[in-house]
Amino acid sequence: MGVNPLHVIMNPSSVAVVGASNNLGKMGSIQLLNIIYGGFSGEIFPVHPTETEIFGRKATNAVADLPYAPDLALLVVPTRIVPEVLEDFGKIGTRHAIIVTAGFKETGEGGIALEAEVMAIANRYGMRFVGPNCMGIINTRLPLNISVLPVNMPDGVLAIASQSGTYITQTMPYLHRQGIAVSKAVSVGNEASIDLVDCLEFFGEDRDTKAICLYIEGIRRAERFLEVARRISRTKPIVAQYVGGTQSGARSGASHTGSLSGPDYVYNGLFEQAGIIRVDTIEDAYKIGWTLATQPPMKGTRAGILTHSGGPGSAMSDVSDRYGVAIPAFSSSLQDKLKRMLPGHASTGNPVDLTFITDTRPLVADIPRMLMESGEIDGLMVHGVNDTDFSSSMYPVMEQVIDISRSEFIKMSEVNLDVLTGLPAQHGKPLVISSFVTGDDHATQLLLEHRIPHFDIPERAARAMAALCQHYRIRQRKVGPPPPPAEKPAEAEACMVEMEASGADEFAAKALLKAYGIPVTQESRVKTLAEAQRAARQIGYPVALKACSPDILHKTEQEMVFLDLENEAALTEAFTAIREKNADTPLLVSEMLRGNREFVAGISDFPGFPPCVLFGIGGIWTEAIRDVAVRLSPLNREDAGELLNAITASDMLGPYRGLPAVDRAAMIGILMNLSRLARDFPAVKEIDLNPIMVVGGRPIVADALFVMR
Amino acid sequence: MGVNPLHVIMNPSSVAVVGASNNLGKMGSIQLLNIIYGGFSGEIFPVHPTETEIFGRKATNAVADLPYAPDLALLVVPTRIVPEVLEDFGKIGTRHAIIVTAGFKETGEGGIALEAEVMAIANRYGMRFVGPNCMGIINTRLPLNISVLPVNMPDGVLAIASQSGTYITQTMPYLHRQGIAVSKAVSVGNEASIDLVDCLEFFGEDRDTKAICLYIEGIRRAERFLEVARRISRTKPIVAQYVGGTQSGARSGASHTGSLSGPDYVYNGLFEQAGIIRVDTIEDAYKIGWTLATQPPMKGTRAGILTHSGGPGSAMSDVSDRYGVAIPAFSSSLQDKLKRMLPGHASTGNPVDLTFITDTRPLVADIPRMLMESGEIDGLMVHGVNDTDFSSSMYPVMEQVIDISRSEFIKMSEVNLDVLTGLPAQHGKPLVISSFVTGDDHATQLLLEHRIPHFDIPERAARAMAALCQHYRIRQRKVGPPPPPAEKPAEAEACMVEMEASGADEFAAKALLKAYGIPVTQESRVKTLAEAQRAARQIGYPVALKACSPDILHKTEQEMVFLDLENEAALTEAFTAIREKNADTPLLVSEMLRGNREFVAGISDFPGFPPCVLFGIGGIWTEAIRDVAVRLSPLNREDAGELLNAITASDMLGPYRGLPAVDRAAMIGILMNLSRLARDFPAVKEIDLNPIMVVGGRPIVADALFVMR
Repeated sequence: MGVNPLHVIMNPSSVAVVGASNNLGKMGSIQLLNIIYGGFSGEIFPVHPTETEIFGRKATNAVADLPYAPDLALLVVPTRIVPEVLEDFGKIGTRHAIIVTAGFKETGEGGIALEAEVMAIANRYGMRFVGPNCMGIINTRLPLNISVLPVNMPDGVLAIASQSGTYITQTMPYLHRQGIAVSKAVSVGNEASIDLVDCLEFFGEDRDTKAICLYIEGIRRAERFLEVARRISRTKPIVAQYVGGTQSGARSGASHTGSLSGPDYVYNGLFEQAGIIRVDTIEDAYKIGWTLATQPPMKGTRAGILTHSGGPGSAMSDVSDRYGVAIPAFSSSLQDKLKRMLPGHASTGNPVDLTFITDTRPLVADIPRMLMESGEIDGLMVHGVNDTDFSSSMYPVMEQVIDISRSEFIKMSEVNLDVLTGLPAQHGKPLVISSFVTGDDHATQLLLEHRIPHFDIPERAARAMAALCQHYRIRQRKVGPPPPPAEKPAEAEACMVEMEASGADEFAAKALLKAYGIPVTQESRVKTLAEAQRAARQIGYPVALKACSPDILHKTEQEMVFLDLENEAALTEAFTAIREKNADTPLLVSEMLRGNREFVAGISDFPGFPPCVLFGIGGIWTEAIRDVAVRLSPLNREDAGELLNAITASDMLGPYRGLPAVDRAAMIGILMNLSRLARDFPAVKEIDLNPIMVVGGRPIVADALFVMR
Repeated sequence: MGVNPLHVIMNPSSVAVVGASNNLGKMGSIQLLNIIYGGFSGEIFPVHPTETEIFGRKATNAVADLPYAPDLALLVVPTRIVPEVLEDFGKIGTRHAIIVTAGFKETGEGGIALEAEVMAIANRYGMRFVGPNCMGIINTRLPLNISVLPVNMPDGVLAIASQSGTYITQTMPYLHRQGIAVSKAVSVGNEASIDLVDCLEFFGEDRDTKAICLYIEGIRRAERFLEVARRISRTKPIVAQYVGGTQSGARSGASHTGSLSGPDYVYNGLFEQAGIIRVDTIEDAYKIGWTLATQPPMKGTRAGILTHSGGPGSAMSDVSDRYGVAIPAFSSSLQDKLKRMLPGHASTGNPVDLTFITDTRPLVADIPRMLMESGEIDGLMVHGVNDTDFSSSMYPVMEQVIDISRSEFIKMSEVNLDVLTGLPAQHGKPLVISSFVTGDDHATQLLLEHRIPHFDIPERAARAMAALCQHYRIRQRKVGPPPPPAEKPAEAEACMVEMEASGADEFAAKALLKAYGIPVTQESRVKTLAEAQRAARQIGYPVALKACSPDILHKTEQEMVFLDLENEAALTEAFTAIREKNADTPLLVSEMLRGNREFVAGISDFPGFPPCVLFGIGGIWTEAIRDVAVRLSPLNREDAGELLNAITASDMLGPYRGLPAVDRAAMIGILMNLSRLARDFPAVKEIDLNPIMVVGGRPIVADALFVMR
């Protein structure tokens, strides 16, 4: 492993910048300006072939002429000279770089070759770098701002890693307006050398960082990503936006950073397994990240809602319910206390709705304190905390009837938020606020200053509270140790040899499954009618008879599957029918399972991912119902249990209308053993066990399909 | 029907205000101020028991003393005197009112009685009113502003009706900042007399209104709502937020406006049937409404994306895909033209990604025009149109190196948006913009002025474009005429009499279904073994035997259903087994269907809704899989067809892996006939046909359960 290269890249004591000039329209120049005027206290070396001075700093004409090897090289040069400049730095002993230049893997063939060339140079000199095709990094602690805009929020607590440069650079003014202070930020670009996993590890160790925000178009080291994220997310919340799960999103991502994406449900599986909170927009990524970074964690799932209007209260309730946040009806003793403080028509049941008020004070002091103290909630949302925005909107009519200056009138409306803003720290419970105002409002400014998350619509405040609740559940869940190392089953190698020979037919496949302890139907592979009859007698009627060949893929559609053969006559008839279609395929005589529900389990293959274990509703309607979920291997017992619960129709596993529950341990065993099998034999690309019939409560694999690499 | 009372309420020539005083902290006073200073040119009569002058206007001490009956009475008085004041107006001849006062139905029993009293008075005098428990109305054309905040945006084109007063009053400054101009707005409150349907009808006819935005906690006249919305939505887009679909949302709504809500999927059905675009947040309701009100309609489903950074482009692509908006890869000829205008690393495939720029000009002129002209898209999204926000953020570093004043520097960056803002009208294609800035930005201000929808994050711009595409589909779809009136089938009444006598057992239920032409299993109701044997011979083995009594609800769980009885011996054994459990229940001998898939159809009952027709995946797993959709009766052919397509697993209806397609016309017939039956017999509360087996392709009802009122 070695030391994470981001330690040096984020904390250099000297930086060389190649590609900056006195032309202010160029990105390199702007980045140099931000390094210089962003407060970086280390040495800065502009390197330029012709200029002798850039922004008042002496420029060096060639890398070779630098007085010593700087800790970090920033390359913002034309694509074709990147290899050469990087090599120059390699030669003088610089081991860390940021390659902003684009035009590599994301552009197709030629770019892929050039990126490989850059990697070869880096490897030769033991160099690690961020990029290419990135926009830089930010460390507000040092400070060091290698981006295109000033960053002025101190004491940052939210770390960002992004596969889009915009999200750590051009959005800085946006983040400032929202009161969001970044601790560290990395634009990872094409991730040739340093990727999201390195960022996660670095952020995980960073003491300033209280929560992590990721923008993702595709992950290429999914197994390691899972391992790292799962560890970090138990204490430091991680939120992620993923946009590669659709056809258009994937195509856009590929031409943006050359990323390889995968289907949405696979990333959902990864995120759930890793304890990552998935969000749908970049705003949610930032603002939910900020909420998680600044608020005390929730210690339960109950939230209170305080509002001065019913619509926002109902909308917050609705969102909360969708995300599993309880909005408990308050106890009658609490409601009695509240009623004494409220106008007659106010609701006290939760939401507490003060109804229309012109004065914000009731929202910000005794009532929220009473709710926080009540012991009936684990977090509080308040809608409508604003003051001067309302009064400044009202002034044009007010000035018609009272003799008061605008500034006096507005000043009069300013509320004191000391009580409200102190509540989270005092009670160790999170607080989120919404109101339809911007940062110009006095109360809103106070909230931002005190790092109380503020949202301009109630639904997003509720979504943020839901994220706090999600993180409560993430902290609570049992993750379990990795599955214990296990020898390959004794017979497995032999089965695999046979399977490779037979072309992975169903019989061989089931033999391998059986070697891994996965229950399969009792069956015999036969060639002749006599063999079939003997097998059927041994198994006991009724039996099934089907073609058994890897070359016959849709045997049901081809009418080469006969079920429920009650006796020898029926068996003989079925045998003849199959033989008429195919003179020499081997056949399978199987016990006829009388199941009462069907599931599917399997192994799927996605680029950048380890073998993924899939589980869902099975039978012939699998593709129509599309209720499947995924976890990455290796699967431990807890992963497998969560996978069972991850499908929509998970009630099908329980006791259900007189049917017994599915043997959960047995189903978990199937999933864990599938994971083990896939990791033991990398030659296996895909496995499809469909259906897994449930007989009594016992799951038995009735059909198995293997696809080898 | 008569004239819509909103014509007068929204356009009065005189208004009396009861409840305003010189106390500026009171809602009535603020509303009076907004009427006076909001430009209302009609007569205004403050009525107050003691004050003689309010805000310089002469006050009348009693309603009876008014010089004449004003067109409109505004009541903002204590709850208990509302009936009395309303009656006073009734006596002098005022026929329209707005009752702002709260404390009615939403507070429970006493309030419900008081609301009934108010209604009785209104009916006695032929009065119609908005409210109670509302916040007023706005008509920016007149103008008349009966709300709590000034409204200053002329030429409004978006109409709003809301079950929350906040959303037409306190959000006005928010709407102004977003450049959104309202045409009409109504806070409907408890809807005792005037409801959302009246608003819809009124907005539908209003020539200023180009799109309609609804905030809904529950609909009480769903059938009429559907009828009206379906007609209007074909030309005027309607967006709606519904928050009553969850337990917490419903509870909050009930205590807010006393509304009765229903499950989410029922409202989804209503909205889809009505051609209403459902949104998840109040921001989307406003901003998507605004987009639909201001932009030319899409004439296809293809959108182009132009951006200066990859992340936003990918996020827009991803959102588009989720909502069925095509992001077509551009033709090579268009890409060639674009390449000539772009830097080397820019992508041209759609998204067109200019990559990092410090100058916004390339985003706003030739390239967007070229895309609009290309014939390859039906709408355009552009990310990154902003100017002075960037330069003002940059100035602190720039001033270090160039000698220029802040204002000069910022002025320099201002772009001309004439080309961009002219594109929608010129090409008849919609344009939406996103960038991470607020309204302070010069370019953003220009966009707002030109009514080009602007979003602060790319995902929401893409969501708005998707709404334009949804409305394209709404305009395209065939709605069809109402189902033709039909006589009750001749046998139906007799069946119903029998069913009411027999307690709606399965046999009677199926007889009624058969009368409506719904195919059911061939079967006989029997009491004795001999009868059973005779029936089985007639039907032909194998048969099913089951208990047939409305008192035996879960007959499968009670082991009173025997399937696949192959011969008389098996039948006899089954008969005996049932008789051992129950000595005298009638029994049903049925043909044994060999189906290959199972659906459910039925009638469901929701308060405020006509009988709803339900369709979904059937069989015993219905409740676990929960894939059902709903349409409101009366169902025409098109409704029924859309209902079949509305379930997630609608592929189960098609030809599928060798199985024939389900006979679509037959399934549509079942749904339409269910609708007819439910409307013919209001005594029928619920019907559950589960399973409907598909034999070959033919759907046949295998079990039927009726619940009578």
